Amino acid sequence: MKKIAISIGDLNGIGIQLALENHNSIKKMIEPIYCIDREMLEEASKLLNISIPKDFTTVEDIAPNFKIEPSKVKKDSGRYSFASFKKAVKLAKSREVDGVMTLPIHKKAWELSDIKYKGHTDALRDFFMSDAIMMLGCPKMYVALYTEHTPLRKVSQEVRDVKKLSSFLINFYNEIREKLKDNEKVALLGLNPHAGDDGVLGDEEKNIIEATKIAHEIIERELYTQPLVPDIAFTPNVRKRYRYFVAMYHDQGLAPLKALYFDEGVNISLNLPIKRSSVDHGTAFDIAYQNKKLNNLSYINAIDYFVTT
Amino acid sequence: MKKIAISIGDLNGIGIQLALENHNSIKKMIEPIYCIDREMLEEASKLLNISIPKDFTTVEDIAPNFKIEPSKVKKDSGRYSFASFKKAVKLAKSREVDGVMTLPIHKKAWELSDIKYKGHTDALRDFFMSDAIMMLGCPKMYVALYTEHTPLRKVSQEVRDVKKLSSFLINFYNEIREKLKDNEKVALLGLNPHAGDDGVLGDEEKNIIEATKIAHEIIERELYTQPLVPDIAFTPNVRKRYRYFVAMYHDQGLAPLKALYFDEGVNISLNLPIKRSSVDHGTAFDIAYQNKKLNNLSYINAIDYFVTT
Repeated sequence: MKKIAISIGDLNGIGIQLALENHNSIKKMIEPIYCIDREMLEEASKLLNISIPKDFTTVEDIAPNFKIEPSKVKKDSGRYSFASFKKAVKLAKSREVDGVMTLPIHKKAWELSDIKYKGHTDALRDFFMSDAIMMLGCPKMYVALYTEHTPLRKVSQEVRDVKKLSSFLINFYNEIREKLKDNEKVALLGLNPHAGDDGVLGDEEKNIIEATKIAHEIIERELYTQPLVPDIAFTPNVRKRYRYFVAMYHDQGLAPLKALYFDEGVNISLNLPIKRSSVDHGTAFDIAYQNKKLNNLSYINAIDYFVTT
Repeated sequence: MKKIAISIGDLNGIGIQLALENHNSIKKMIEPIYCIDREMLEEASKLLNISIPKDFTTVEDIAPNFKIEPSKVKKDSGRYSFASFKKAVKLAKSREVDGVMTLPIHKKAWELSDIKYKGHTDALRDFFMSDAIMMLGCPKMYVALYTEHTPLRKVSQEVRDVKKLSSFLINFYNEIREKLKDNEKVALLGLNPHAGDDGVLGDEEKNIIEATKIAHEIIERELYTQPLVPDIAFTPNVRKRYRYFVAMYHDQGLAPLKALYFDEGVNISLNLPIKRSSVDHGTAFDIAYQNKKLNNLSYINAIDYFVTT
């Protein structure tokens, strides 16, 4: 069974409730190591009125303890969540665990405690000096993003960078190759409406085809489709044919994905020396520490990712 | 009951089968006038082995008859489908009917017979010298497109055109105002990932806000939302709150729409002197004249549009 370090996220949010409530389910899938000090765990458990499972393994000395203030954006809480994340990454780096699963942090709380990263993926890129690939989805459908937080008007020039795009396509293949069936194809999206309609509505599809050709030569496999028509690629009949999609930009892939599978989504970082998955939701301060029933699909899928890889 | 002219589409495709098979259902909703010559109708009926309902009202003298060749892209068939469309529009213009419902044409067949338009909407813009607004969807969710067949790299400059955008927002309101409930809001999408994240990931959202402000002053109503985060706008909880969405570009609106409601979609032209709806699928040459059971949801919804307006 794989050992997975779980970074505990912002303790003023819902992460710790997910961890406590789902421990008995996930311990059948992986061996969880929770990056939280015992004292903090006890405080949260008391506030939530959820007892700590006996075999809830923690690692100590994360960061100075602080008072949990449910649903509040706080410097202390931000600092703690970052320390928990760093600890989990350290365990993965030294191979004491097989991967890292991150619970939601609060960006503003990171900002308050002078952490310069916008989020986990951003931090991971810096820790490993590597071009992490962001893939979101659930077992029914994963979408990898070629560009992520690029303003829409700048997406075109990134797509025209054939060298960068082909390198992305090669790296992505290397990350998923073990999971691919023989002859399985990956759905590659065009950029323009109707995938350019033979150049009439934009011509970046030519660059995509060129990049694909280069990638196919290197990986010695005809993996990627021709640039698919973006508004058809996610229709039911096309979805039946593919598990993996490559989107040229953020909303092209994530708007259909979240329309279909919002509650189940996970966020996965590829092309890094460590494996990392995350829930694809936030700290949900609006429902934290209120004895609410939480939707745990995203959490379970984020754990499941390690089982199926 | 409203009288609706039905343009028969490409007779080598599935349109005529939809018309014949659904006549008894739709005649309870509207009074259909089919723009097809009797002789052509009889030929299709024989080929399909579907008898012509008694009260199947046609208009004559559409265009020279021709031999139907199932699933073939043909000049004659293209010419005929264009003539049927023109006839339907003429009836609507002279107020002999209350609207036009178009069955699918084949663009290549139009091209072969030297028709200069790329499709119905394109032709309607020219017929009426008017900036038709394209809205797609089904009764659960309609998406109006601010830009349609614009290459992605050029969308930004269109969004920055505050005058044009505000005029679009005003026109769209005028088209749907009778259907809106008191205080009903329309979901207006941002352009960039995370709707720009306060300008960090693009700043066209400022232009959208400015255009909305102008539109709101003119229409004297706070109709449109703030620019919504595009990949969140179509998630289940947000969809519950809105029936109408305004997308800044083609795939932003249509990829989630078609992922969710592909089979049910209709295409509606607004901001024209006539009312027009259309099925949102093609001629389906792969299944035409094969006694296949057709999915009629899009057809029924396209007819239903006139009932509910």
